[in-house]
Amino acid sequence: MKLVSIPFRGSFLLTAFLHFFLVTGTSAQLRPRAQGIKIGVLPIGTYNAITDVAGVKVGQVTLVQGQDVRTGVTAILPHDGNVFQQKVPAAVYVGNGFGKLAGSTQVEELGTLETPIILTNTLSVPTAADALIDWTLQQAGNEKVRSVNPLVGETNDGGLNDIRGRHVKKEHVLQAIQKAQSGAVAEGNVGAGTGTVAFGWKGGIGTSSRKLPEKLGGYTVGVLVQTNFGGVLQINGVPVGEELGQYSFKETLDKSSDGSCMMIVATDAPLDARNLKRLAKRAIMGLARTGGIASNGSGDYVVAFSTAYRIPYEATQPTSAVTLLHNDYVSPLFLAAIEATEEAIVNSLFMAETTSGTQGHTIQALPREKVLDLMKKYGRIK
Amino acid sequence: MKLVSIPFRGSFLLTAFLHFFLVTGTSAQLRPRAQGIKIGVLPIGTYNAITDVAGVKVGQVTLVQGQDVRTGVTAILPHDGNVFQQKVPAAVYVGNGFGKLAGSTQVEELGTLETPIILTNTLSVPTAADALIDWTLQQAGNEKVRSVNPLVGETNDGGLNDIRGRHVKKEHVLQAIQKAQSGAVAEGNVGAGTGTVAFGWKGGIGTSSRKLPEKLGGYTVGVLVQTNFGGVLQINGVPVGEELGQYSFKETLDKSSDGSCMMIVATDAPLDARNLKRLAKRAIMGLARTGGIASNGSGDYVVAFSTAYRIPYEATQPTSAVTLLHNDYVSPLFLAAIEATEEAIVNSLFMAETTSGTQGHTIQALPREKVLDLMKKYGRIK
Amino acid sequence: MKLVSIPFRGSFLLTAFLHFFLVTGTSAQLRPRAQGIKIGVLPIGTYNAITDVAGVKVGQVTLVQGQDVRTGVTAILPHDGNVFQQKVPAAVYVGNGFGKLAGSTQVEELGTLETPIILTNTLSVPTAADALIDWTLQQAGNEKVRSVNPLVGETNDGGLNDIRGRHVKKEHVLQAIQKAQSGAVAEGNVGAGTGTVAFGWKGGIGTSSRKLPEKLGGYTVGVLVQTNFGGVLQINGVPVGEELGQYSFKETLDKSSDGSCMMIVATDAPLDARNLKRLAKRAIMGLARTGGIASNGSGDYVVAFSTAYRIPYEATQPTSAVTLLHNDYVSPLFLAAIEATEEAIVNSLFMAETTSGTQGHTIQALPREKVLDLMKKYGRIK
Amino acid sequence: MKLVSIPFRGSFLLTAFLHFFLVTGTSAQLRPRAQGIKIGVLPIGTYNAITDVAGVKVGQVTLVQGQDVRTGVTAILPHDGNVFQQKVPAAVYVGNGFGKLAGSTQVEELGTLETPIILTNTLSVPTAADALIDWTLQQAGNEKVRSVNPLVGETNDGGLNDIRGRHVKKEHVLQAIQKAQSGAVAEGNVGAGTGTVAFGWKGGIGTSSRKLPEKLGGYTVGVLVQTNFGGVLQINGVPVGEELGQYSFKETLDKSSDGSCMMIVATDAPLDARNLKRLAKRAIMGLARTGGIASNGSGDYVVAFSTAYRIPYEATQPTSAVTLLHNDYVSPLFLAAIEATEEAIVNSLFMAETTSGTQGHTIQALPREKVLDLMKKYGRIK
Repeated sequence: MKLVSIPFRGSFLLTAFLHFFLVTGTSAQLRPRAQGIKIGVLPIGTYNAITDVAGVKVGQVTLVQGQDVRTGVTAILPHDGNVFQQKVPAAVYVGNGFGKLAGSTQVEELGTLETPIILTNTLSVPTAADALIDWTLQQAGNEKVRSVNPLVGETNDGGLNDIRGRHVKKEHVLQAIQKAQSGAVAEGNVGAGTGTVAFGWKGGIGTSSRKLPEKLGGYTVGVLVQTNFGGVLQINGVPVGEELGQYSFKETLDKSSDGSCMMIVATDAPLDARNLKRLAKRAIMGLARTGGIASNGSGDYVVAFSTAYRIPYEATQPTSAVTLLHNDYVSPLFLAAIEATEEAIVNSLFMAETTSGTQGHTIQALPREKVLDLMKKYGRIK
Repeated sequence: MKLVSIPFRGSFLLTAFLHFFLVTGTSAQLRPRAQGIKIGVLPIGTYNAITDVAGVKVGQVTLVQGQDVRTGVTAILPHDGNVFQQKVPAAVYVGNGFGKLAGSTQVEELGTLETPIILTNTLSVPTAADALIDWTLQQAGNEKVRSVNPLVGETNDGGLNDIRGRHVKKEHVLQAIQKAQSGAVAEGNVGAGTGTVAFGWKGGIGTSSRKLPEKLGGYTVGVLVQTNFGGVLQINGVPVGEELGQYSFKETLDKSSDGSCMMIVATDAPLDARNLKRLAKRAIMGLARTGGIASNGSGDYVVAFSTAYRIPYEATQPTSAVTLLHNDYVSPLFLAAIEATEEAIVNSLFMAETTSGTQGHTIQALPREKVLDLMKKYGRIK
Repeated sequence: MKLVSIPFRGSFLLTAFLHFFLVTGTSAQLRPRAQGIKIGVLPIGTYNAITDVAGVKVGQVTLVQGQDVRTGVTAILPHDGNVFQQKVPAAVYVGNGFGKLAGSTQVEELGTLETPIILTNTLSVPTAADALIDWTLQQAGNEKVRSVNPLVGETNDGGLNDIRGRHVKKEHVLQAIQKAQSGAVAEGNVGAGTGTVAFGWKGGIGTSSRKLPEKLGGYTVGVLVQTNFGGVLQINGVPVGEELGQYSFKETLDKSSDGSCMMIVATDAPLDARNLKRLAKRAIMGLARTGGIASNGSGDYVVAFSTAYRIPYEATQPTSAVTLLHNDYVSPLFLAAIEATEEAIVNSLFMAETTSGTQGHTIQALPREKVLDLMKKYGRIK
Repeated sequence: MKLVSIPFRGSFLLTAFLHFFLVTGTSAQLRPRAQGIKIGVLPIGTYNAITDVAGVKVGQVTLVQGQDVRTGVTAILPHDGNVFQQKVPAAVYVGNGFGKLAGSTQVEELGTLETPIILTNTLSVPTAADALIDWTLQQAGNEKVRSVNPLVGETNDGGLNDIRGRHVKKEHVLQAIQKAQSGAVAEGNVGAGTGTVAFGWKGGIGTSSRKLPEKLGGYTVGVLVQTNFGGVLQINGVPVGEELGQYSFKETLDKSSDGSCMMIVATDAPLDARNLKRLAKRAIMGLARTGGIASNGSGDYVVAFSTAYRIPYEATQPTSAVTLLHNDYVSPLFLAAIEATEEAIVNSLFMAETTSGTQGHTIQALPREKVLDLMKKYGRIK
């Protein structure tokens, strides 16, 4: 079965916008969990996606064009109101700071996110940031806004994509925002994951969530990842990389472990920026569980935000009362973020398809059948 | 005397490129030090400019167009070779992180700067970053480069400039880089300082340097600032803001103290990234001495780099020997950075001219004669 | 006039506990502000002391013994309840991290302070931390406590004090806590400032406060410092160091600029840990205004806390509503912290007395008469 | 078989100093690797211990006394010269900062370690720091030293140990330093791990190392851990916690996941402080692979140092040439740190013995036979 569609060629924009939502029904059956791979001890949310955090929406634009263009845009919206006017508490954690994340310092200082989060390829970060500024300036109510902090993350899809060609345009970014929706999220070769590579196989977009039992607070944590990194792949503890003979530094000191992983963590738990940063740090622990090593050339960034309350652009009063979760109650959220990140990464690998791209490079999809056999061999599925 | 030139209207690009170097000779006589204001205890370099650090070049493009455009670009080059291939050690310090500095996380992680530093206005950061990517990709020797970390700082000139109009274009950034030169640096309403405001008066670009005596190491520290912030102005210890009745929070809780200050610190001392970050922190102490307060809405960032050695993009050997200054010898450099930052800020004020801009706003130049009178009254000049 | 008392010799403990409160009345008349030196634009609190923040108490034990012992302890209590059970929001900012501050990482992580803050000499930090643990474990209600994060700062008084002798004992720390009181705070050669040196003159403890006008929020910011650092002294903008011919690096690359400055910032403004850290950063800007340079060997640390609300050790509910000040309203607090720190440092110098100590070293008090003359010469007092 | 010896009662000091080296031969056979559990893809060093980094020594003092005392001290020496005079490059990374690590800020600022590293229990950190000061002051050549930065880490052994009794004395710390030796390192209930608990089973001291193949640089990375934390235990990818029905939050929101993990990473690779901090961050990724979650109440700290070069206390020249590894070559070291940390944690669990302590609490050893059965069931050993 071929999920990744034949590129729609010859459009006016010379780009193709794949509508993965058409195949979401099918995709769901292919997700690792549907095949018996149950990662972690906590229950998942309805869609096992970042969108299980109420109000969060995801929109993606996939650019597949000719031989050379394999890239795209993924937008994550914390809510569908005016994000600039109604900011959400947020934090950024830098696992390994090779990478070009835009907007991190202001999030760190003010503790707020004021635009959607855009993921794309490394050399298109300025384009995406520019588009976020356009989008914000033009939104009703923002007529007087003169300062915007666009948050844009990236990984480098230059192995499959003609990244130097800078094929992502502002309209693609705006389309990704406009297409954002609730519910199931397309994974694999889609949006900002169209041309990425993880553990030597085709990576991409992945998502997962955890819904804490009521006794642990009842909150939801959702994660979305853009996988493009290396290491020694382990799926639910099974040494897939070793078994398949493909892992970093096996033969030489190559840079195959480089690349990056962008991780977005959303929650409805009422956390302030300090505790959101702590939550963000746990996503790296989820990455570690897949065998990622955050190599020198990896940009491993986490952006975490909460939908529990909003911070108005223009406060009408000097103070306001904010309901916040006590430190003592955050630990289950940490576990949730770890598990959801681990599963989101695994999902990105399972859902991606073999892809050929620039310079005739081909990256194979994770050999799912072999992996499922390994999961059986190692007693992880029956 | 009018230093800031009449805008060159009607060009094809609808922009004006002021050639301040024509008036540098005159400008030099107007700098505070020439008028007897001697800040600090350490001697200055030849030009009392960041370019006193050998190899550092500065290029500026000033955009003054009609009623609404008052902005520009200032480029600082650590050397005139291929900066991507021959990176320099660098660090970023965030005094107050309101602001949109691009590129900080990678500098923090890897300890290197791989592009010129561009300063511009807040909403043009993506354009400048995009231009830096163009410039780097196109440079001879970079044909295979697929990842570039553009470093772009900004302040918000929206009080005088139609910032929402996004008038800075990529060509302006490239021109600023191309125009970069050694020697005297234009100050005041120039480049990225064209539309900025500091302490309620017209701010702009300022620069200064210190040359340590041989007994203190003999190194040079140069600073360039883009001033756009508030507080309670003090010039060489004289309470100018209070005397002239203009300072933040005098009447109400306004946001006049907001704005930002970008500070670039260059040195030929052989410092690693850790000690460069320490050096960068001292620039904020220089800002403090002028009465700046790093208010909530201020983006006070420092980028520090050393020209003492270079870090090749592709190391041919796993290790190399680097000559580094011992911790015990860095303190005089700290003092130099403090003094040069203080003087650079004062220079930016003295050299700026009254400017009218968007929405009919006019910002007065620092009343130099009154200030000189105050310097006399307070015993700072004769 | 001699403020620093003759040491009380021959006590059982071989230590002397000076009761500065006896001379507070006199001291107040000697404070710089009483002599016309008015630093900053904001009004001061009742005592111009950290204790102007309601509930904050200060206790000090001064150890002057024979020729060699010139040291002591200063305790700052955020409130006089059980601080462990009723923690206060807090943050630590490291200006320059040479130094042995105990407890910083937990404050950073959890955003809370759970013990009084103790200041003492460098080599007595463990003793003070041990005493804080004793004190906390023994407090009623803490019978089951098994983890305590003592916060202890220090500067190195080894120039006047036989620091290797470790003369501070646990009982001194406990006494300082027990003696803590509201109202006027003794300054100069007292407590942890007994043997310190600043700008080459006798330093010590200093304190100051600002009370914001109602239009700026009406909050109080109080600062207490332990001064033991160098640079190029400037008092309210007057170049005292240069005029008196005494400043760092005047002749050679000595280490006279080393030493440290501990700064404690208290406020009743309802800030969370993130904004308290921002407030703490501004204290370094106050230090900068006195001519401090945060030299390589300086431990310049700031601890900031708020008394506006308390965080219970054992939360009875997972969430609670906290009233917090909006980011947009913090800037006047920043200015207050800068001004109060600057004045506290100046106070510490004015209130300290010439001291002879170990190895026959004598450190002169700031020559107050000469300084006052300079203040007149430079138009700062009449 | 009982490894942990009967306490030597009735000594003058009322403490017992267990000499684990006597049983090291036996212990080695019980280590997981000897039983077929091979973690990671990189080869180990001679002793599979932190001491595989040439020059590094470990000394431990175990305090088992009556019913209540189950604690101790573990000392790690970077070399056996005068560490204060010949500092080593070092860094600290805070995974989760609940905890009382002493000395972190100076290591961060100066990039150097100047004492042995001591691990002990939470409430004995000041005692250990005090002892390190004593030790340093008394060392030949340090007669004029007046400032020492003791580095002391801890975990809370209060579940088995009468931690409020503060049974660790300065002499225990000094003995641990004196006993330090190369070669095999005792693990489990020893030194600072005597009373710790991990994943609900008895934790303790564990160590492991990796020796990179020559093609990857040939460097050694050694790790020593003090395990006292929770989560959902996974051993080499096998879900031990789930299988044995013991993991955090299984039933309720308890604090069983709290506790801490101290991790010490040594290497002979020539890294500066910046890259050592990056190396330190990877240890947390190793912890993550065991199922640790860095819960709210966990103090997860990493100290990393290099033995490749030394930084003299008193530099005789302002600059010196340091041979450093280029960024591009650090990734294999990252993988080594991850693997060695994971294995060190597993070792600590396998080597620890069931322990009864204060208040009649008993913590079971990891049920090794059951675990080995699980390893077989999940295909990890034959």
